[in-house]
Amino acid sequence: MTAEVGDYVELHFSLKIYEGVLLEVPKSEKGIVLLKLDNGYNIGFNKKDILEIKVKRKFKKGEKVEEIIKKDSAKPNVAMIITGGTIASKLDAKTGGVSWLTDTNDFLKFYPELLKKVNISKIEVPFMKGSEDMDYKDWIKIAKTCEKLLNDDNLKGIIITHGTDTLHFTASALSFMLRDLNKPVVLTYSQRSIDRGSSDANLNLQCSALTAISDIAEVVLVGHATTNDDYCYALRGTKVRKLHASRRDAFKPVNEKPIAKIDSEKIIILNEHKIRNKAKVKLDTKFEEKVALLKFYPGQSADILDYYLKNKFKGIVIEMTGLGHVATSSSRNSWIKKLKEVQEKGLIVCAAAQTINGKLDPLVYSNGREIMETGVIFLKDMLSETAFVKLGWVLGHVTKKEEVKKLMLENISGEFNERLEE
Amino acid sequence: MTAEVGDYVELHFSLKIYEGVLLEVPKSEKGIVLLKLDNGYNIGFNKKDILEIKVKRKFKKGEKVEEIIKKDSAKPNVAMIITGGTIASKLDAKTGGVSWLTDTNDFLKFYPELLKKVNISKIEVPFMKGSEDMDYKDWIKIAKTCEKLLNDDNLKGIIITHGTDTLHFTASALSFMLRDLNKPVVLTYSQRSIDRGSSDANLNLQCSALTAISDIAEVVLVGHATTNDDYCYALRGTKVRKLHASRRDAFKPVNEKPIAKIDSEKIIILNEHKIRNKAKVKLDTKFEEKVALLKFYPGQSADILDYYLKNKFKGIVIEMTGLGHVATSSSRNSWIKKLKEVQEKGLIVCAAAQTINGKLDPLVYSNGREIMETGVIFLKDMLSETAFVKLGWVLGHVTKKEEVKKLMLENISGEFNERLEE
Repeated sequence: MTAEVGDYVELHFSLKIYEGVLLEVPKSEKGIVLLKLDNGYNIGFNKKDILEIKVKRKFKKGEKVEEIIKKDSAKPNVAMIITGGTIASKLDAKTGGVSWLTDTNDFLKFYPELLKKVNISKIEVPFMKGSEDMDYKDWIKIAKTCEKLLNDDNLKGIIITHGTDTLHFTASALSFMLRDLNKPVVLTYSQRSIDRGSSDANLNLQCSALTAISDIAEVVLVGHATTNDDYCYALRGTKVRKLHASRRDAFKPVNEKPIAKIDSEKIIILNEHKIRNKAKVKLDTKFEEKVALLKFYPGQSADILDYYLKNKFKGIVIEMTGLGHVATSSSRNSWIKKLKEVQEKGLIVCAAAQTINGKLDPLVYSNGREIMETGVIFLKDMLSETAFVKLGWVLGHVTKKEEVKKLMLENISGEFNERLEE
Repeated sequence: MTAEVGDYVELHFSLKIYEGVLLEVPKSEKGIVLLKLDNGYNIGFNKKDILEIKVKRKFKKGEKVEEIIKKDSAKPNVAMIITGGTIASKLDAKTGGVSWLTDTNDFLKFYPELLKKVNISKIEVPFMKGSEDMDYKDWIKIAKTCEKLLNDDNLKGIIITHGTDTLHFTASALSFMLRDLNKPVVLTYSQRSIDRGSSDANLNLQCSALTAISDIAEVVLVGHATTNDDYCYALRGTKVRKLHASRRDAFKPVNEKPIAKIDSEKIIILNEHKIRNKAKVKLDTKFEEKVALLKFYPGQSADILDYYLKNKFKGIVIEMTGLGHVATSSSRNSWIKKLKEVQEKGLIVCAAAQTINGKLDPLVYSNGREIMETGVIFLKDMLSETAFVKLGWVLGHVTKKEEVKKLMLENISGEFNERLEE
C-alpha cells in the first residue's frame, strides 16, 4: 500500500519509528518526507534515511488533518537557562551601549513568539556575563544546572541563551561534561539585541524551541543558517565555530553537516544524531585548568613552549599549518628539539588544524612524521577550540600520556567525523 | 552604433581602455563582455564596469576573427621563481614521501601546458623549502628576486611557486615589500604533487600564466576556485587565507571579492585592481622580527603578555573574540590592567578578528571600549595573518606609537576593504 498525503503512517528508521500524518512537501524541499506528529509539530526527514513507510490508516476524502491526529493540547514544558550575552540585553538609552535584561519576566515579554510552541516552565540564571568573560568554571555551572533539569521528567528539553564570542567553547564543554545525554540541550544567541529591527533573536528562539522538543539528544547550537531571517540550523556542539564577527549566520558547521534545518513551523533532520532516551544524565565536570591553545606562525620561536612548562601547564593544543606542521628545518626555530624536551618534562602536546577545515595527516611529508615521532598527538579533523576544551576535560580525568592519548583520539561526543573524506 | 560579436572595439573603463574583438559569451557567463586582445588572449569584464564601448571596425560577413586581430606571434615572456612546496616536488619511490623537483628543466618538463601560453624566459630558485619553514628572511629573499625581475622590460610578469602552509603570509609580505608595483606578481601552489592523478598543479599554472600577462599589477594568489579542476581565482595577497588542509580550493578570499576568475582560455575581471604601469618597483624590506601573533581563548591568563615583554618583542597582534574582546571582568584574568602595563612599557598591541570574517568594532560593547581605551589598535577587517606581517613591516620603519598606529590603519596594499558592509 503506497502512502499518500493525509495518511496516518509509521516511518521506520534504523534507530527509531515515527508516527504521524503525511503532509504535502513544499517544492523547495525535494527529497524530504514531512510528518505532522501527534503533538501537532511538523518534522521532516530525508527520504533516503527511511527504511519503510507503513500506512496505519488511510486518509478519507473530506477529512481534516486535525481529525486524524491525536491532539495533545498541552504545550510541552521546556526549561531555559539565561547566562547573558546580546540575546539577554537591550539598548541602554542612557549610555548608548547595551545592558542586561535581568528580569526573566522581561525576557519572555521581549520574546512572546517563543511561547507559541512551548511552555517555558522553568528559568534558571546561574550568572549573567558576556561570553568573552567566561571560563571553565562557568561551563561547570551551566553543566550542573543542565543536569538537574535534564533529569526532571516534566521537561522535554533545555534552551540556553548565551553570548556569541565563546559560545562554541561552551557547546564543546557541555558536550563532554553531560554524559549519557537523554534530551536536547540547545544553545542559542543573538548577534543583534532585540530592540533593534534586524534582531535575529526571535527566529533563533523559535527554532530553538522546536529543537528542544525534538528527538535530538545532543548538545546543539541553533542559529541563523543564512543572512536572511528565514531558517536556522542545529549544529553539533563539538563541530561548530564562530566564523563572522557580526552576521546573523556567524556560526558554521566545520567538517560536519548540520544535524537539522528548522524554520518557525518545522524541523527537518539532515544528519545522524543521538536519539532521545530514558537514561539518567551523569555530570562529569572534572577539568584541568592548566591547558592552553597556541597558534603557530612563521618564524615563531619554539621557546614559547618554555613559558607553558614554567607556568605549570599540563597540556597544550598547537594550531599547526597545513596537514600538521611547524618549522622543523631551521636551526633558529628548533621546534623538534623543543617539542621533545617539553614532552619529556610531562607537557602533553596536541596538534589541531590552523586551516580550520579538513584534517591533519602527519604521514604525507617528512616534517609531519618528524613531529609525530616526538610524541605529539595529531587530532585529525577536531576543531582546535574543541580540542582545547577536550584536553582540559581529559586531563581532569587521566594524566598518563598513553591514557590521555587514548581518550583524546576516542570519539566521545562527535568531535571526530569518521566519514570526512577530505 | 551598437557593438556586435566580431566587431573590433574599444572598451572604456574608469582607469583604462582595452582594444580587441568582441567574442560570443557562453551562457554561463551572463553579464560578462568577452574580448580577444591583439596578442590572442581572451579577457572578460563585468558589463556594469564598462563606461563606453566604441566600435573601431565593424565585422564583415565571412571574415575570420584571426584576420581582424593584429596577431602578436611571439609568446610573452614570464619569469618564474621556484621556492619549494608540493608544486615543486614529486613522489620519492624509495621513501614513499615527496622529494624536490630541483632541476628547473625537470620542472618545465613536468608542466608542459604552462608553455602553451607564455615563454618562461627566466627561472630563479632563491631557495627550496616547505613554507612551514619560512620566515621573514625568506620573504625578503623572494622580494629581492621579484624586484630585479619586475624592473626588466622584457618580462610581462612573475609566477612564484610556493608551499601552501604559509603561502598567505608570503603573499602579504610581498604586498608590503614591493612598492609601486608595475606588473602581476602571481603566487601559486599545488595541494597534490604532479605525479598524482588528481594534481591541481597544471590548471593552477595555466591560470597563473594568464594572470601573469594580464593588467593586474598586484600581488595575487592564483589557485582552484572549487574542488573541480575547471577554473581558478586570482585573490588579493592581503585578503586571502588557507582554509582547508587538503582540498584543491584551500585558499579563500576573506572580506573581499576575488580579483579575477581564470580558466585555461580566458581571464574575467571581477573586482577593482591596480593597473599595469611603467613605474619602477622599489624594494622596501625593512622588517622588525620581534613581532608575535597570539590567539585569545577562554580563561587565558593575561600574564602571557609578560613573556613577550620579557623576550623584547616590539609588537603583538591578538586574535580577539567577536567584535574585538578579551576577558575584562574577571579578577583572575585582569587583561585590562595587563594591557595598560605592557603598552606603557612600549609593546605595541593590535587586535584582529578571531572569527576571520567580518570586522572589529570596539564601540558596540563596554568591554570593547575599555580595551580600546588602553591603547590597543583595532584593525577592522584586516586578517590576523596579514596584520602580523604588516606589524613587522611597519615596525621596521617607525617605532613611535602614534606613527605605528597611523601606518597600521592606512590602507597600504588593499589590506582593508573600505566597502565591506558587515
